[in-house]
Amino acid sequence: MKNHEAQINTWLKENRARGARLLQILVRENSTRGNESSAQAILIEKCRQLGLTLDIWEIGSEELKNHPAYCCDRHDFEGNPNLVAVLKGTGGGKSLILNGHIDVVPVGNESSWERDPFSGHIECGKLYGRGATDMKGGTAALLMALESIIASGIKLKGDVIFQSVIEEESGGAGTLAAVLRGYCADGAIIPEPTNMKIFPKQQGSMWFRITVKGKAAHGGTRYEGVSAIEKSLKVIQRLQRLEKDRNDKISDPLYQKIPIPIPINIGKITSGEWPSSVPDTAVIEGRMGVAPNETMQSAQAEMEACLNELNEQDSWFKDHPLTIEWFGGRWLPGNMESSHPLMKELSASFREVNGEEPVVEASPWGTDGGILSAVGNTPVVVFGPGTTEIAHDANEYIILDEMFAASEIIALTILKWCGVQE
Amino acid sequence: MKNHEAQINTWLKENRARGARLLQILVRENSTRGNESSAQAILIEKCRQLGLTLDIWEIGSEELKNHPAYCCDRHDFEGNPNLVAVLKGTGGGKSLILNGHIDVVPVGNESSWERDPFSGHIECGKLYGRGATDMKGGTAALLMALESIIASGIKLKGDVIFQSVIEEESGGAGTLAAVLRGYCADGAIIPEPTNMKIFPKQQGSMWFRITVKGKAAHGGTRYEGVSAIEKSLKVIQRLQRLEKDRNDKISDPLYQKIPIPIPINIGKITSGEWPSSVPDTAVIEGRMGVAPNETMQSAQAEMEACLNELNEQDSWFKDHPLTIEWFGGRWLPGNMESSHPLMKELSASFREVNGEEPVVEASPWGTDGGILSAVGNTPVVVFGPGTTEIAHDANEYIILDEMFAASEIIALTILKWCGVQE
Repeated sequence: MKNHEAQINTWLKENRARGARLLQILVRENSTRGNESSAQAILIEKCRQLGLTLDIWEIGSEELKNHPAYCCDRHDFEGNPNLVAVLKGTGGGKSLILNGHIDVVPVGNESSWERDPFSGHIECGKLYGRGATDMKGGTAALLMALESIIASGIKLKGDVIFQSVIEEESGGAGTLAAVLRGYCADGAIIPEPTNMKIFPKQQGSMWFRITVKGKAAHGGTRYEGVSAIEKSLKVIQRLQRLEKDRNDKISDPLYQKIPIPIPINIGKITSGEWPSSVPDTAVIEGRMGVAPNETMQSAQAEMEACLNELNEQDSWFKDHPLTIEWFGGRWLPGNMESSHPLMKELSASFREVNGEEPVVEASPWGTDGGILSAVGNTPVVVFGPGTTEIAHDANEYIILDEMFAASEIIALTILKWCGVQE
Repeated sequence: MKNHEAQINTWLKENRARGARLLQILVRENSTRGNESSAQAILIEKCRQLGLTLDIWEIGSEELKNHPAYCCDRHDFEGNPNLVAVLKGTGGGKSLILNGHIDVVPVGNESSWERDPFSGHIECGKLYGRGATDMKGGTAALLMALESIIASGIKLKGDVIFQSVIEEESGGAGTLAAVLRGYCADGAIIPEPTNMKIFPKQQGSMWFRITVKGKAAHGGTRYEGVSAIEKSLKVIQRLQRLEKDRNDKISDPLYQKIPIPIPINIGKITSGEWPSSVPDTAVIEGRMGVAPNETMQSAQAEMEACLNELNEQDSWFKDHPLTIEWFGGRWLPGNMESSHPLMKELSASFREVNGEEPVVEASPWGTDGGILSAVGNTPVVVFGPGTTEIAHDANEYIILDEMFAASEIIALTILKWCGVQE
């Protein structure tokens, strides 16, 4: 085994340029929602070159759409397929899913970027571009891990199932489709940007849309109307209080160092059409975090109770009640015990490569791990390069050294988990 | 004179259906910004039938665009002309401008309307539709007043200059163009919806756009970003305080009964692109009221001082300062003395028609009167049917009885002001 580990270490060292180049061409393909095909094409070709068994399909079957965990507002998946590529084992080992998502979030305010958001520019060991961290860097780390094993001539006993899915950022329909297609395993690693921490538990989350009614009027006699913006302030302040109350109750030691374990993020507000009119409608959209030990339903009920409280206490809302929709993104929480064997193997590999103990925490955000574990019955651990701090920000980047370290740790974990045919 | 007044009263009574029909076809033409032509066509044909001297032109000359009072973000005026139609007097009388605007504000949330926003539906003496009150009702009242005089065979000494301008809702470029074309007079009446009150002073106003910077981040670790929405709350609260401070200083008795004499209306907010990202930019647009006795510049300076204060006191704004633009709409305040002769004639006509004293107040909103008086040196009084309460709201309507009363009061004022050739 020691020999294999040395081979992998050497191969990864010698192929850094190859790995950086793979990530660069991936980042250069804008794969925001609905535009995933060209980035997927790069991965398909890479997996073909690696000799993996390819499964490329457009998601959207009736079975998928009728599944209770399906939560998606996209209607057209045509031309933007899911990819699963299997490295078949010789038998007798445990199987492992390596899951990455190809979709990236929008670039935001383009003027905040110092370069083209899809530049793939490399400087001082960092590679820049939307998706570099979330999570094309993780995906490249997975493929480099697989390539290091294959190139070293190592034969695995268990199957490795590489997945590049669409729709993670919008609720996980891509991973759900893969689960329903039969892809389950004895364990799974998702290299979302954990800043090289190991997250056995993942926060779930779901999107909401609150509609606030006002009463239009001329801005010059604004007292004759009711401003949907002013009423929204009340709603936002109430949600801030709910966030505090919910987080005060979190006692899981894995969340100890996280300032807000299950945040309520107000991501979007739109109200008004005309500067000199009192706006009659405001729409607030956001994301509610769900604790590993709670259900989506109970979290939903807490927010709905808050809004009902406002609807009862505020005389305007009494007659013009706030409404809420749970639309779009929806990620089930994940809850692997810290003592699970996959945690043991991953932690050991981390120590071997980095020479120190890994930090084990609960993930501050939802991943497709919730679907994989809850629906696919596959235990999931989340571990990868890059930090969430810059994941959805302008000038997103990944530190390439970290990507290669993750690649090596994952490669060693694969050897231990799947077993090597000597 | 009494005979003329009786003639007008009789004609207006006999031609109610004609007046209602004129307003109905006007309301049925959507004349939101950029779509004014078809409603103007109705007025052009009406003025032609009345035998007025027509002046129809597309605004947008270099002289207009370079004028200091020009404030307009519209580039294309093609196909949507201004209209001036003159009833030439026999000489020796005072001239009078009758000014109305043809542009209407957007319909807002269409689902709040019980009928098509441009239905022109008549029920229980009310005519419904966007613009019925603001201010096609006023414009119809002007034309019915003129028609009653012409149809009664009355010859006026002074000129009456009827104007149907574009762009009132966005800063008055239409009226400014008419002034620059040479249309000034000894007095002017603008029948904006004053609820039949007489407004010798008009509040000025101007639009602003404040940009609030944040720092994007993944919503799951929202504490790593800075929410532009949360920072906007601070800005809005500061503007609410500024509004209070400014209004506490208003002592003009004409504003005594107005809850907020010079409001700061937040008309629009847009922030964020994605429910699970922390938004990095928010844009707040609104309208700031300007008191009759203050300059646009001093009002602007007060708001800018507020933002500068936030920029100094808030550690985030210190490094990411709030910025403000004064864009789009801009209406100069108007300041006619209550003792002006036009006030006297209008008040006398009001008493004759309604049998009671008129209510004299300061207008709670800006009108094109500011441009007419400040640039065109034409004393302006604002008086018309309809209430601002429903002016920019869903289900806008006008009470037809009120429109006809306004028409009669304006007709009698014309006789007194311009003088009748016996």
